[in-house]
Amino acid sequence: MSSTRDIDALIDLMAKLPGLGPRSARRAVLHLIRKRALQMTPLADLMQNVAASARECVNCGNIGTADLCDICTSNKRANGQICVVEDVADLWAMERSGVFKGRYHVLGGTLSALDAVGPEDLRIPRLADRIGDEDITEIILALNATVDGQTTAHYIADQLEDRVTLTSLAQGVPIGGELDYLDDGTISAALNARKPI
Amino acid sequence: MSSTRDIDALIDLMAKLPGLGPRSARRAVLHLIRKRALQMTPLADLMQNVAASARECVNCGNIGTADLCDICTSNKRANGQICVVEDVADLWAMERSGVFKGRYHVLGGTLSALDAVGPEDLRIPRLADRIGDEDITEIILALNATVDGQTTAHYIADQLEDRVTLTSLAQGVPIGGELDYLDDGTISAALNARKPI
Ligand SMILES: [Zn+2]
Ligand SMILES: [Zn+2]
Repeated sequence: MSSTRDIDALIDLMAKLPGLGPRSARRAVLHLIRKRALQMTPLADLMQNVAASARECVNCGNIGTADLCDICTSNKRANGQICVVEDVADLWAMERSGVFKGRYHVLGGTLSALDAVGPEDLRIPRLADRIGDEDITEIILALNATVDGQTTAHYIADQLEDRVTLTSLAQGVPIGGELDYLDDGTISAALNARKPI
Repeated sequence: MSSTRDIDALIDLMAKLPGLGPRSARRAVLHLIRKRALQMTPLADLMQNVAASARECVNCGNIGTADLCDICTSNKRANGQICVVEDVADLWAMERSGVFKGRYHVLGGTLSALDAVGPEDLRIPRLADRIGDEDITEIILALNATVDGQTTAHYIADQLEDRVTLTSLAQGVPIGGELDYLDDGTISAALNARKPI
């Protein structure tokens, strides 16, 4: 019931969110307290719901509410294409562009010798299994144009080139750029102009 | 139960917080979903508690859990001094500096002809009442060094100069600066070097 302590604890937790620090967390909490009926309670309720229901899709790594995500269970998305992304944020960016009609595979990072991230840590074995399971004919590697992203793309291409057509996003991804920063038009252009690896 | 929609709604609500936009809200929500047990559930619980219990002190405008805040009910803070601030964020900044031992009065803004903010909107009548109610001998005007802040300080000084000693934060508050941006040491120096108006 000691809400002064609760307020301090709330500020501390908010300050841990990416992009926020102590000062912006204090501002956000004050804002929420002022709008506690209209914004804070709905926000807390939604967070509670999402915390209880959100989970990673066991097939692709996307976030949904069941063991399999909406995209993996939709027959409309079974067009023989899988788009491989590093992160759910990248999947969201692709979906906002609205151009890609297939399914996804979220690696959850990139290969990194330094951080000891190997293929098993990135769902790469599962990606190979999906080729047969879901009659995949094309894998589009939509990884970030960073050194680690491109290393990972080459590794996946080496593993799978005998089994499917491998393509990568082409035009429009700037050197060193990250997908999630791109506007929807750039993503559309890059997808439409994709080229074989 | 449709958490994909809940996730979108959660991102929209987070994006309304000061300092966050759509992109940082998406990052924050993904971060929370990944740490849903350790961070998201505790954050939602705390928000729920604070939304249910937080309220403005009827005496000073500080945020607490009861009609009167902890500072207004503490006899230790009844030293005859009131520090007048614009905002609860400024009160928090003063408290972090740890130098001020009296009570506060949170105006909730500054006088503004443009925005039609008058003395009644800023708890200024209540401030006058407190002088007698709480045996106040000094009022420290810790308003921001902005035009509106200084206009408000002069208005309050005009109203109350016959009844109490009026001082203002002196050294260290930069021209155009806002209290909540200052480091604790600067606030301490400004308070200790306060001068009569
Ligand atoms: Zn899935
Ligand atoms: Zn109070």
